[in-house]
Amino acid sequence: MELLDRYQAVRSLTESLASVLTAEDQVAQSMPDTSPAKWHRAHTTWFFETFLLKACAPDYLELDPAFAFLFNSYYVAAGPRHTRAERGMITRPGIAEVGEYRRHVDQAMAEMLTQPVTAEVAELVELGCNHEQQHQELLLMDIKHLFSLNPIAPAYAPGVVATKECESTPMGWLRFDGGIVSVGHKGSEFCFDNELPQHDVLLQTFELADRLITCGEWIDFIEAGGYENPTHWLSDGWHTAQKNSWEAPEYWRQVDGQWMIFTLAGLRDINPAEPVSHLSYYEADAYAAWAGARLPTEFEWEHGAATADLPHANDTPSFVHPQPAAAGSDESGLRQMFGELWQWTSSSYSPYPGFRAAPGAVGEYNGKFMVNTWVLRGGCVATSPGHVRASYRNFFYPSTRWHFSGLRLARNI
Amino acid sequence: MELLDRYQAVRSLTESLASVLTAEDQVAQSMPDTSPAKWHRAHTTWFFETFLLKACAPDYLELDPAFAFLFNSYYVAAGPRHTRAERGMITRPGIAEVGEYRRHVDQAMAEMLTQPVTAEVAELVELGCNHEQQHQELLLMDIKHLFSLNPIAPAYAPGVVATKECESTPMGWLRFDGGIVSVGHKGSEFCFDNELPQHDVLLQTFELADRLITCGEWIDFIEAGGYENPTHWLSDGWHTAQKNSWEAPEYWRQVDGQWMIFTLAGLRDINPAEPVSHLSYYEADAYAAWAGARLPTEFEWEHGAATADLPHANDTPSFVHPQPAAAGSDESGLRQMFGELWQWTSSSYSPYPGFRAAPGAVGEYNGKFMVNTWVLRGGCVATSPGHVRASYRNFFYPSTRWHFSGLRLARNI
Amino acid sequence: MELLDRYQAVRSLTESLASVLTAEDQVAQSMPDTSPAKWHRAHTTWFFETFLLKACAPDYLELDPAFAFLFNSYYVAAGPRHTRAERGMITRPGIAEVGEYRRHVDQAMAEMLTQPVTAEVAELVELGCNHEQQHQELLLMDIKHLFSLNPIAPAYAPGVVATKECESTPMGWLRFDGGIVSVGHKGSEFCFDNELPQHDVLLQTFELADRLITCGEWIDFIEAGGYENPTHWLSDGWHTAQKNSWEAPEYWRQVDGQWMIFTLAGLRDINPAEPVSHLSYYEADAYAAWAGARLPTEFEWEHGAATADLPHANDTPSFVHPQPAAAGSDESGLRQMFGELWQWTSSSYSPYPGFRAAPGAVGEYNGKFMVNTWVLRGGCVATSPGHVRASYRNFFYPSTRWHFSGLRLARNI
Amino acid sequence: MELLDRYQAVRSLTESLASVLTAEDQVAQSMPDTSPAKWHRAHTTWFFETFLLKACAPDYLELDPAFAFLFNSYYVAAGPRHTRAERGMITRPGIAEVGEYRRHVDQAMAEMLTQPVTAEVAELVELGCNHEQQHQELLLMDIKHLFSLNPIAPAYAPGVVATKECESTPMGWLRFDGGIVSVGHKGSEFCFDNELPQHDVLLQTFELADRLITCGEWIDFIEAGGYENPTHWLSDGWHTAQKNSWEAPEYWRQVDGQWMIFTLAGLRDINPAEPVSHLSYYEADAYAAWAGARLPTEFEWEHGAATADLPHANDTPSFVHPQPAAAGSDESGLRQMFGELWQWTSSSYSPYPGFRAAPGAVGEYNGKFMVNTWVLRGGCVATSPGHVRASYRNFFYPSTRWHFSGLRLARNI
Repeated sequence: MELLDRYQAVRSLTESLASVLTAEDQVAQSMPDTSPAKWHRAHTTWFFETFLLKACAPDYLELDPAFAFLFNSYYVAAGPRHTRAERGMITRPGIAEVGEYRRHVDQAMAEMLTQPVTAEVAELVELGCNHEQQHQELLLMDIKHLFSLNPIAPAYAPGVVATKECESTPMGWLRFDGGIVSVGHKGSEFCFDNELPQHDVLLQTFELADRLITCGEWIDFIEAGGYENPTHWLSDGWHTAQKNSWEAPEYWRQVDGQWMIFTLAGLRDINPAEPVSHLSYYEADAYAAWAGARLPTEFEWEHGAATADLPHANDTPSFVHPQPAAAGSDESGLRQMFGELWQWTSSSYSPYPGFRAAPGAVGEYNGKFMVNTWVLRGGCVATSPGHVRASYRNFFYPSTRWHFSGLRLARNI
Repeated sequence: MELLDRYQAVRSLTESLASVLTAEDQVAQSMPDTSPAKWHRAHTTWFFETFLLKACAPDYLELDPAFAFLFNSYYVAAGPRHTRAERGMITRPGIAEVGEYRRHVDQAMAEMLTQPVTAEVAELVELGCNHEQQHQELLLMDIKHLFSLNPIAPAYAPGVVATKECESTPMGWLRFDGGIVSVGHKGSEFCFDNELPQHDVLLQTFELADRLITCGEWIDFIEAGGYENPTHWLSDGWHTAQKNSWEAPEYWRQVDGQWMIFTLAGLRDINPAEPVSHLSYYEADAYAAWAGARLPTEFEWEHGAATADLPHANDTPSFVHPQPAAAGSDESGLRQMFGELWQWTSSSYSPYPGFRAAPGAVGEYNGKFMVNTWVLRGGCVATSPGHVRASYRNFFYPSTRWHFSGLRLARNI
Repeated sequence: MELLDRYQAVRSLTESLASVLTAEDQVAQSMPDTSPAKWHRAHTTWFFETFLLKACAPDYLELDPAFAFLFNSYYVAAGPRHTRAERGMITRPGIAEVGEYRRHVDQAMAEMLTQPVTAEVAELVELGCNHEQQHQELLLMDIKHLFSLNPIAPAYAPGVVATKECESTPMGWLRFDGGIVSVGHKGSEFCFDNELPQHDVLLQTFELADRLITCGEWIDFIEAGGYENPTHWLSDGWHTAQKNSWEAPEYWRQVDGQWMIFTLAGLRDINPAEPVSHLSYYEADAYAAWAGARLPTEFEWEHGAATADLPHANDTPSFVHPQPAAAGSDESGLRQMFGELWQWTSSSYSPYPGFRAAPGAVGEYNGKFMVNTWVLRGGCVATSPGHVRASYRNFFYPSTRWHFSGLRLARNI
Repeated sequence: MELLDRYQAVRSLTESLASVLTAEDQVAQSMPDTSPAKWHRAHTTWFFETFLLKACAPDYLELDPAFAFLFNSYYVAAGPRHTRAERGMITRPGIAEVGEYRRHVDQAMAEMLTQPVTAEVAELVELGCNHEQQHQELLLMDIKHLFSLNPIAPAYAPGVVATKECESTPMGWLRFDGGIVSVGHKGSEFCFDNELPQHDVLLQTFELADRLITCGEWIDFIEAGGYENPTHWLSDGWHTAQKNSWEAPEYWRQVDGQWMIFTLAGLRDINPAEPVSHLSYYEADAYAAWAGARLPTEFEWEHGAATADLPHANDTPSFVHPQPAAAGSDESGLRQMFGELWQWTSSSYSPYPGFRAAPGAVGEYNGKFMVNTWVLRGGCVATSPGHVRASYRNFFYPSTRWHFSGLRLARNI
């Protein structure tokens, strides 16, 4: 029954996240990278239906055979699927039918999980829960992007306190000696296939900044001509910035000469002490070059993270604070490693030596994206509780910005 | 009070058309050419608010000042406006708020129209009503396009009988002598500025087909290689057809070797006797060339239409039949001239000699589109009751197809 | 032998025009609309080879069978053809081989034309000569566009006096009474199929400006915010201007606050008295609206042109002055009607009533472009001698500007 | 004087490579990735003029100040530069002027290098020579791409024997033990900054295929549905292949059911024994996945290469064989490691730990491309003599194919 509890807690959080959205909010898709909230709710349900119920529950009757086509995403082996860029056109089934679909699958899953299940089934359920948690974060990222396009700048959760009142604290450097270190997931708890196999890598001695770069520091970069001078930019980065007329991170807006920021609580003044977010890899890299530093590799980050406090897995799923907070001055060691902002690393997203995808359609989860994307580490304020660990590898293209992505510097000795 | 009745009848029909749509249906925009149903409901309201209430009702208080920005369309002189292609991103205000906006404006308009009004006000109200009728047709066109992108092919109105059972009848030709004829709107009833001034043109003797081209005849064209051979196509037409992989009119689908058609009642078999619809100008012109004929000029059409029965202005606004019907065999003269399908003419949409747009923002209505578009005449099954006359000039780009557009042949003697 | 003289004079002028260009100049294609000079030389040769020699000279041996594919343009019925946008990739055959091709065909044509020929052959030769004259103008237009992209701004003909020293003269209006007038080509001399049939049209009384709009007047338009304010623009025009960041006509450049102009003689100061050139239809229309006037229809222009002096057909093909000249003050009546700049009309390029294309591939000459293009009249400084007449219909898309196109105003009475 | 000999040998080879090209061949640019041959000749000259003569030869007079603008490439710090995609528009200066430019700079360089020079100057000359060698290969790659677009498929060097007659030999595997190994450039000879610093990496035990994949094996992949089934493809790879309708490597053409290949000697039959070339990273990766193997990392490749024979630096620059040859059966160990085809590795192109770009404009050489590109190793048949070593890192985007790129498999133990 623990697995059922786990299942129901995850499923319930998704519904809770969507519950403050209207039917209109849930249907719109703001760009090809994003998906409608309604689609996230249905696709995560499709995952359980396809890989658990249809595969292992012989008596299961699907609610509507069209859903298998509509709510598949990139699982080629699971059959044909609807065009990604047109998810916003699927106004029917509506949110009521999607709710019904969720309840239908939840009931069948409850029946399955009240019985003893094989280890394989348990693993698939755990994979489905982690998959759904990823979509919980995507749902928040996507709704933020959607609302940012609305001239009236709606708040996802108006009551949210979008930042702690906090002063900026100085950035320090922490040193880590080189040598052979072990990276990748350790232990028997769940992890994604891309965190395996655990293996050794050779690091050189390096330093990590003890906190994230702040909005105030980013304003310094802007005022120093950071977006006007190609000197510190990667060539692709500069062209992307020029083509898209970037002059600041995503969601920053200059109003009457002042920088404001669009958050899940709406538009408000920037707090210079809060960490800068919604950066592309290109911007993070350009800043680091301008600052005479560099981005950490994913293994440097992971090695450093072993010294930081892991987030508490049983944090209540409140989401009352979906905006990163300033680094506290009373902490020591590496601050803001987990749960504030995903941190760009200089590592391209590649398979670990000996990587093996799971067989079948669930194996399409990670490996097929292992080109052109770069690794981020650490989780963010929109990451679901318990869904963060030191070996966790998130990945995005260097050009995208709608994720909660920030910047921690590294340097050689 | 007649004007108020008129106003309320038009406004009520819009709400009736939208009432069968869900909140999800009303928010999506399927392409830059189309608009969400919710937007149509709000924009038509904005028209009355902007040009009547704000201009002439000193005590009027607007419901929300943001709406002026959100629901303006192309009226440059009326202030800045939201990007056309992103109308589907405006999930808030939702359909409830739009409904409230409509009631708010309707109440203020009722107060205005229960008083005696100037001729100028009466004219603007009439313009607003005609404007809203145009958006009623657009709402149906747009929802049809949206639903066509949904793999489950929803029906706008499931009970609709989508075509009369009817045999195809032979096409005949009717001759019209040349000479000087008067074209443009006659009389004192409402017309758009583009129908004026009434003026004389010189026609040569010509013939018009007595009915529209049918789906059965279009299948002949397809089977004769119509879409595979550039011989009969305009150069731009051929390139457009190739680029978009056109193999049939919009909304035709080949299922198991049979042509089916997507209608407002869903997907069904084609009836060979029904007129072929959703043609681009390019396709209509290619067919005419293939058939050894040509398209009529708009003035040939208008001259011919004087011999046809006008549609009854008091037809009930039922919309139980939003699909064109086969030509009846018991009619004589020009059949299917009005209210079945808009009929492409060979005339580019240009100003009549002495054309003057109305001063101010309402004058942006028609004149600014007088390049690159071609004239269609006759109205269609989705045109609002009473909104058709012989001098009415509709216009679209030669490449678009989401309108209810068909084809009537003409030829020289 | 007169026909042979005619043929050789036209062919010789083409070679003369190309002779000042290097091999490098002759191979480059600056955009899909243009063609390499080498291609113009070869394609005009292909025309005579295909429609005369292969069709009527049984003993003719082609120089290279690949040329039929490489140098066909849009003649679908004449076989497959090379992609238009990639003409600049055909570096071989080079200019030497193209010169040889021309001599090969010229010799065979000379043999044919020293014998008596049928009327049909004579007509095809005349068509070929006119076709080649069109490409002579295109060659000059295209090389001007190509050179304009070179930062060193080369001159096609450095010795050219690019403008007469001349004061601006006031613009007057000439009145023309309405009524039925005959338009289209009259007489038995050569014309293109699109100038036929001669037919009657009904004009209303109108006025034509007695000269073209000057660069000085265009600067007034710019300084009045003409490119910054959508009020006077067609909707498509405004979007095109914004998308392409138009701030002045093609080839105008602001250098140190002064307007300069790129000509076939290189970059130089603007002469305010010279007629403004290289306008899109959109710009011409916006100017006319801003000036409280309009563009003439093609039939108004043609009717007015009957009162102007036709250009002398035996003007020597000097091309020492490929830049339009200011209107002389000692002329009366309509000035600058012929041979200065093509003049935009408000008429879309459409078939005349009863238009019939020639049968076969040569019939693809004109009719297939009769949509989306607008008519220009009058010829320009780059038009070949004798290649202009009152009924001549040139046509371009409203958005293009690399042609020598100017603006004459019209207005209603 | 050794340096002068070195300089002149490199410069002379460039002119020799260009000498078989016509003026027309040298001016065309086939796509934004490529450059005209004339531009390569001028840009390499610009490098010596800018970084040596202008910087270190006080009496140097430049031939034409416009060349500094026209022939800069991406060196932002060296001043503004002409748009990359429009290099084919620069028809003037022509090949004669470019030849003069080369002679002008060569003479000044000869004067400089007959005197004793500082170590810094000597290093810059060596950098310039290596830079020019890279452009020699690019010149061959680019002219091959250009000629491939010409329907008559010209040969760059018609006398070339495009492949050795040779049987295919079986592929074997060679094992390499894991452990800490040193990578990066060793010794004092020239290398690029991206090969430094030499550093240690930790390898796991792996195997390398002893030869490249052949065309015959690639045909097996095609016939097994390799291009029709997404299973083995990276997601980005599959989308790229679909969007570009890839059905075979670049330059393969199916003629009457047989695969032919376009080479620098023209179009000919494929030899199944020759190594497959002009692959994208995506295709190489898909093949490896299909074959149950993977690509080597760049360090595995470099470690393996230490066991292979280095190419002879004093090979005569004949370029009589610009097409890769089949692996000989009489060789042992790793065959085809050097000088046949660049070999894709699974390593993204990233800075080595402690990487430092050279200060100033020459430092823009490599570092700014260190994102989105992948490393290739080994050199190819078009690489200049002496321009290959085990630590050499070439890099291209995963989607490009106009380079001489092939595939060697690796696998885990």
